[in-house]
Amino acid sequence: MFAATIEPETLENAFAPVYSLVDECKLKIGEDGIDVRAVDEANVGMVELSLSSEAFESYEADSHTVGFPLVRFADIVSLFRKNGDIAHLYLDEETRTLRMEAGGLDYTLSLVDPDSIRKEPEIPNLNLTASITLTGKAFNRSVNAADMVSEHLQFGSTSNGVFYVEAEGDTDDVFVEFNVDGDHVSELEPGDAESLFSIEYLRDMGKPIPDEKETTVEIGSEFPVLITYNIADSAVNIQYVLAPRITSD
Amino acid sequence: MFAATIEPETLENAFAPVYSLVDECKLKIGEDGIDVRAVDEANVGMVELSLSSEAFESYEADSHTVGFPLVRFADIVSLFRKNGDIAHLYLDEETRTLRMEAGGLDYTLSLVDPDSIRKEPEIPNLNLTASITLTGKAFNRSVNAADMVSEHLQFGSTSNGVFYVEAEGDTDDVFVEFNVDGDHVSELEPGDAESLFSIEYLRDMGKPIPDEKETTVEIGSEFPVLITYNIADSAVNIQYVLAPRITSD
Amino acid sequence: MFAATIEPETLENAFAPVYSLVDECKLKIGEDGIDVRAVDEANVGMVELSLSSEAFESYEADSHTVGFPLVRFADIVSLFRKNGDIAHLYLDEETRTLRMEAGGLDYTLSLVDPDSIRKEPEIPNLNLTASITLTGKAFNRSVNAADMVSEHLQFGSTSNGVFYVEAEGDTDDVFVEFNVDGDHVSELEPGDAESLFSIEYLRDMGKPIPDEKETTVEIGSEFPVLITYNIADSAVNIQYVLAPRITSD
Repeated sequence: MFAATIEPETLENAFAPVYSLVDECKLKIGEDGIDVRAVDEANVGMVELSLSSEAFESYEADSHTVGFPLVRFADIVSLFRKNGDIAHLYLDEETRTLRMEAGGLDYTLSLVDPDSIRKEPEIPNLNLTASITLTGKAFNRSVNAADMVSEHLQFGSTSNGVFYVEAEGDTDDVFVEFNVDGDHVSELEPGDAESLFSIEYLRDMGKPIPDEKETTVEIGSEFPVLITYNIADSAVNIQYVLAPRITSD
Repeated sequence: MFAATIEPETLENAFAPVYSLVDECKLKIGEDGIDVRAVDEANVGMVELSLSSEAFESYEADSHTVGFPLVRFADIVSLFRKNGDIAHLYLDEETRTLRMEAGGLDYTLSLVDPDSIRKEPEIPNLNLTASITLTGKAFNRSVNAADMVSEHLQFGSTSNGVFYVEAEGDTDDVFVEFNVDGDHVSELEPGDAESLFSIEYLRDMGKPIPDEKETTVEIGSEFPVLITYNIADSAVNIQYVLAPRITSD
Repeated sequence: MFAATIEPETLENAFAPVYSLVDECKLKIGEDGIDVRAVDEANVGMVELSLSSEAFESYEADSHTVGFPLVRFADIVSLFRKNGDIAHLYLDEETRTLRMEAGGLDYTLSLVDPDSIRKEPEIPNLNLTASITLTGKAFNRSVNAADMVSEHLQFGSTSNGVFYVEAEGDTDDVFVEFNVDGDHVSELEPGDAESLFSIEYLRDMGKPIPDEKETTVEIGSEFPVLITYNIADSAVNIQYVLAPRITSD
């Protein structure tokens, strides 16, 4: 069984990062919460969502794996949020539907076959040698600036203390250097690292991150980047993994 | 003659329901106010607007029937409203124009031949057996939820006290049950009734209804629905009539 | 050399009128500030921007003429403004780039060859016989109203005290008469004058003018119109010149 109540806003913010990469995903419902791992069509971007039972007002469940249609789910959750009523979720195993109710409005969401959903790849061991913790706003500002000049940007760091974002365009260049300033950047662990990434993915991944939310970016040398943040008093954890573009030189 | 002054906002809100269905309409100007009845191209949705002279700051008129171009009228009224100046209306019978002035801006609106406008049908006697009075927001929320899963919804009621909105989609379903809660629903007269309607029409009709405005929905068994509300301290009355889709089963 | 610091908002508001007509322009950097003159592709609309060194927080320069790409410049200035950090500008003569830095974000803007930019025409002596000073809001309201009925409007005045905007459409007409009211119109110097102008140009020119900003419109008989306003405590002066349409009657 699975029966739970939750603020629609928490639900919306928790699933937005998943929805930024895929249209449907596998939901692993367990006693202590819900886990999602999903990879985009091109096998380039991955997202892990861990939604602890503590993010819910009430939560009762045993183990289920269901296929979840994010597009219709996002629509109805957005309507719930606008009305502000708390959402009741109930899994009807017989009809393979998720009943969602809020403020007298009953929505019956047909689930999809979990076996039809793209399997996420195993993440290999990552040798990540530098990291920074900065606000969502500072992260998105760098990505948006880089987006003005190119389709790719480099996250980089040097062992003498620098963390940077760099984008080289046909005519113009963007360079952002980060320092721990207590304002936008709270932590910085420099190290020799540089990898190139698709700006389109970074923009999609960055959009759901709240402006003031501390976000950790971990990089290596031509390794994937890990982007991690949490919401709802750490009851919801989100981690993106984005594969690098291999530079030719 | 016809000469009147009125707040642009009242004018805009009064004609928005008419404009939601048609691009031009017949205006019946009389001593006590203005009446409009209009039906959409497909003969499916009808609207009646009764704009009492009390909705005006000043009002002087004898009888006229004029053809009214709503698109251009809506544009200029919207500009007037943004500037906040009171609008002066004056019918120039010789040139068949409506002079509209506000804040020094003079707009001369060419009227159209009233005989060129689609004639509204007679409304047959309706046997409506159930009704509900709810907020515009609650009405629109149901319609928007139904719109996520289907192109049609049912308004229904049962003699044991229920009023509902139901939409069955290819995969998902929506069901909204209404109770008198003093909050969104102020009155409910249940009775055996169920009819199917086009969601597209209901969305267009619902848009001009203010969020907090009490709206009465009257239904029967495969009969048209009447949707009624008023604004400007009841000086402006609006009634929609929407024909049902006949269900095949 | 050229090195300066300035609020991004001032930079954005100063160049918006230029950007409303052209995509690139010649910047004449001097000891006391920056001057721009640019004419649109059709040789119909011209803009002069005078950006005094007093508009800057700090300003140091000798003489330079550079070709300036407004599209990319506008993008990055808009990003700077959203973040609120003061902008540092620095001309790198060797690489023909303008370095723009704000809040740790470094943008390198490639300049273009000034000789490749359309040369602005000489303005002949204008015999302008009437003028009005009105708010940006009142100016734009007239233009927007005229835009509802036609592609051209007339600015006109008569020696007995009237200043007006008139547009004649296929069906509807707009007429706006201005009087000194202390509210929207602060000054009026009437005189015999009437000229016809493209509404599309006037809309583009009017957009950057702030609502409450006093704007002077000077007209003659089939002469160009001058539209002038200033921002940043008069440290930034903007003047548009728009050629008339010659009326056939």
